[in-house]
Amino acid sequence: MARDGATGLLSPIGRGIAAGSDTAHMAILGYDPFTLYRGRGPFEAKGVGLDVAAGDVAFRCNFATVEGRKIIDRRAGRIKSGTEALSDAISEQVPEIDGVRIMFKNSVEHRAALVLRGEGLDEHVSEVDPHHEEEDYWECKPLPGYEDNEAARRTADVVNKFVQRSYEVLSTHPVNVQRAADGLFPANITLPRGVGTAVELQPFADRYRLNGAMIVEVDLVRGLGLYLGMDIIECEGATGGRDTDEMAIAKAVVKAFDTHNFVLANIKAPDLGGHDSDAPQKIEAIEKVDRALGYITQNLDAANTVIMLAADHCTPITVGDHSGDPIPAVFHGCGVTPDHVSDYGERSCARGSVGHFGGCDVMNMLGNYAGTAAKFGA
Amino acid sequence: MARDGATGLLSPIGRGIAAGSDTAHMAILGYDPFTLYRGRGPFEAKGVGLDVAAGDVAFRCNFATVEGRKIIDRRAGRIKSGTEALSDAISEQVPEIDGVRIMFKNSVEHRAALVLRGEGLDEHVSEVDPHHEEEDYWECKPLPGYEDNEAARRTADVVNKFVQRSYEVLSTHPVNVQRAADGLFPANITLPRGVGTAVELQPFADRYRLNGAMIVEVDLVRGLGLYLGMDIIECEGATGGRDTDEMAIAKAVVKAFDTHNFVLANIKAPDLGGHDSDAPQKIEAIEKVDRALGYITQNLDAANTVIMLAADHCTPITVGDHSGDPIPAVFHGCGVTPDHVSDYGERSCARGSVGHFGGCDVMNMLGNYAGTAAKFGA
Repeated sequence: MARDGATGLLSPIGRGIAAGSDTAHMAILGYDPFTLYRGRGPFEAKGVGLDVAAGDVAFRCNFATVEGRKIIDRRAGRIKSGTEALSDAISEQVPEIDGVRIMFKNSVEHRAALVLRGEGLDEHVSEVDPHHEEEDYWECKPLPGYEDNEAARRTADVVNKFVQRSYEVLSTHPVNVQRAADGLFPANITLPRGVGTAVELQPFADRYRLNGAMIVEVDLVRGLGLYLGMDIIECEGATGGRDTDEMAIAKAVVKAFDTHNFVLANIKAPDLGGHDSDAPQKIEAIEKVDRALGYITQNLDAANTVIMLAADHCTPITVGDHSGDPIPAVFHGCGVTPDHVSDYGERSCARGSVGHFGGCDVMNMLGNYAGTAAKFGA
Repeated sequence: MARDGATGLLSPIGRGIAAGSDTAHMAILGYDPFTLYRGRGPFEAKGVGLDVAAGDVAFRCNFATVEGRKIIDRRAGRIKSGTEALSDAISEQVPEIDGVRIMFKNSVEHRAALVLRGEGLDEHVSEVDPHHEEEDYWECKPLPGYEDNEAARRTADVVNKFVQRSYEVLSTHPVNVQRAADGLFPANITLPRGVGTAVELQPFADRYRLNGAMIVEVDLVRGLGLYLGMDIIECEGATGGRDTDEMAIAKAVVKAFDTHNFVLANIKAPDLGGHDSDAPQKIEAIEKVDRALGYITQNLDAANTVIMLAADHCTPITVGDHSGDPIPAVFHGCGVTPDHVSDYGERSCARGSVGHFGGCDVMNMLGNYAGTAAKFGA
C-alpha cells in the first residue's frame, strides 16, 4: 500500500493531543470535537439502543455489587445474564425523578447506559464510580467551578437519587435473590460515569451524500456511528480482543461495498497490545491488520476505491496509554498519486508527500481522491 | 541535539506572519494571539510592576525632552537616575483624569509604563511618540474607523491630558532643574505608545498544571510571564545585549529545574545581529546560544526532560527586522523519537519528522513528549 500510495502523518485532533477513540473518530469523520464533543455518554447510550436527543445528559453505567456505600465488585461478578430483567425493573419503577425523564438500558455483561431528559441539565458533574473496589462509591457533585451552576447541581442531585433508587429496585429483585442463593455477587446498584451532553450532529449521509457503514469493535465508536445515522454492520468473529477474526472483518468490509460507498472499519487488537505495554502482542495484532488489508486490497477495485490506513490514536508500548504522537497514514487507490515512500511507519511516513494533516481533513481528502466532493466556490 | 532529536519548522502565529516577541511567546505558551492579543501595553505595564486588570488600557512610555511640542530627545539623554522621583511626582499629582484612574511607574533608564483604569476605554487610539526627533509629538486620536467610537475618543482625550499634565509636573521638578544645571536633557514629558487593552488570560499554572519559570532578556516577554503568573528568575550577567553571559543563563536554566518543572529561556543576542543586518555579529550570537545549549543538554537528565530549541521569530540579516519565515526547531529528550535529520538549520529541519507546526501546538507537543498532558476524549 505504501509503495503504490501516498503517505503522511495524522494528528486526529491536534498536534501532541492524546485523543480518545470518540474524539478521534469524530474528527476523522469531519465533526470537530473541539466544538462538538461534550462527553462520551451520548455515544454510549446510543450504542446500547437508547433514544438520545440534543440536550439529554447521558452516562455509561455499570451494574455493581455494594454493601452500604462500599463497592464489593465494580462489575457484579461480570454478570452474564438477567440484566435485561433488572433493566426493565428500573425502567418501570423509576420512570422519572424530579420531573427529569429517566431512560436506562442494559448492554453486554455488566454494562448499561442512562439518559436524563429534562430542562436545566448540565454535564459538568463528577463521576459516581471511583474505578476501584473496596472504596465507597462517590456522591455526584458539580465539577469545580460549577458549584453555583443551577443545572449542574440539579443534574448531580438527580444522579444521586437515581443511584439510590437503583439500589432500592435491584437489591430485592428476584434475579439478585437467585444470584445470592447461587453464591454470585448481586447486581444491586448501578454506577453512572462517562457523562456527556448530547448535541445536534448533522447525519453523515446529509453531510457527505455518502451511504456510510461501520464495522467496528469498539462500542463507543459504534455508538458514534449510530448517532451519525450510519449503518452498523455486525461481523461474527469480531471480538474486540486479541483473538478477533481479522479475516472475517476483512471479508465484511469488502462485502459492505456491495451496499455502501463508504466503510469505516477498525480492529482493536493493536491498541490492546499498547495498553498492555506488550510488544510481541502488539506485533501480532499489527500482523492481523496487515493480513486483513491484504485481503481488502486484493478484493476491492483500486481503480474505483480509495483506502486510507491509519489509527485513531497512538498507544505506544512505552507509554501504555493513548499518546499525542502523530499516526502514520497511507492513502491508496483511485485518485492517489504515489510518493517516493515505500514502507509504512512513523519515520517513513513523516517523509511522505501528504505531510502532516488533521482528522478534520480526512473526509475532504478522501472525497477529493474519490471525486465525490463538491467544489467550494465557483 | 538534532542528531538525537526530532526536527521541524515552527510558524509561531501563522505561515508567513512576522511575529512580535509578545505575540510569538503568547502562541508558544498556548495563548492564541489572534483572539487574546490586544496590544503590548498590558505586558509592558505588568513588567514594570504596575497592577493590571482586565479592561485596563495600558501603554509603554518614554521620558523625553521637549521644547513646546518639539521633541529634542526621545529618551531625555538616556536618563540614568532620578526617574523614580519623577514617577512618584506624577503618581501623586495626577491620580486621575476625568474619572479615569492613572497609574504610572518608571522602569530602566528612560522607560516607564502607564495604566488607565475606568469605564468606557478602548485601545484603538494612535501613538503620541512619533519615533523621531526634531518633530512635534503627536496628538492621540481614535484610529481610522474609530472616530465615532466614544470609548476611543475618551481614551485619546485622557491620554492627551495625561501628556500635558506630565509636562506640567515634570518641567519644574527639582530633578530636571538639576539636570538643566548639569547641562543634561531634562526629562520634562512622558510620551505614551504601544497601547493595549488588558484581557483575562488563564494563569499558566491553572492551564497546564505546571510550575513554570522564565529566564528572559526581553522586558516585554518578562511582562507576559508575570501576566501569566509565571515565576521570573533573574540572572546576573543576562544583559539582553551582545555581551550577555550565556553560560550564566545556561546555569540558571539548569538550576531552575530544582524548583520548577517548566522553564522558558531566551537569549536576545541573535535578534540584535539580525536587526543590525550584521552577519558576523549574528554568527557570534548563535555561537553563544550553542554554548549555552551544550551546558544545558549536558546537565539536564535527557531521560526526564524534553528540550525544545527554536526562536520566537526570524530576524534575517537580509531583512534587518522580524520576518514571517518559519523557524527551525528541534525537540530532544524524553519521549522524542529521533528522525533522520542530524543538523539544525532552515533547510535540514524542513525535512524533519515533526514537519511544520504552529506556536499553539508547542505546549501540547511538549506535554505529549513529557507525558504530562491529559487525554481529550475517552
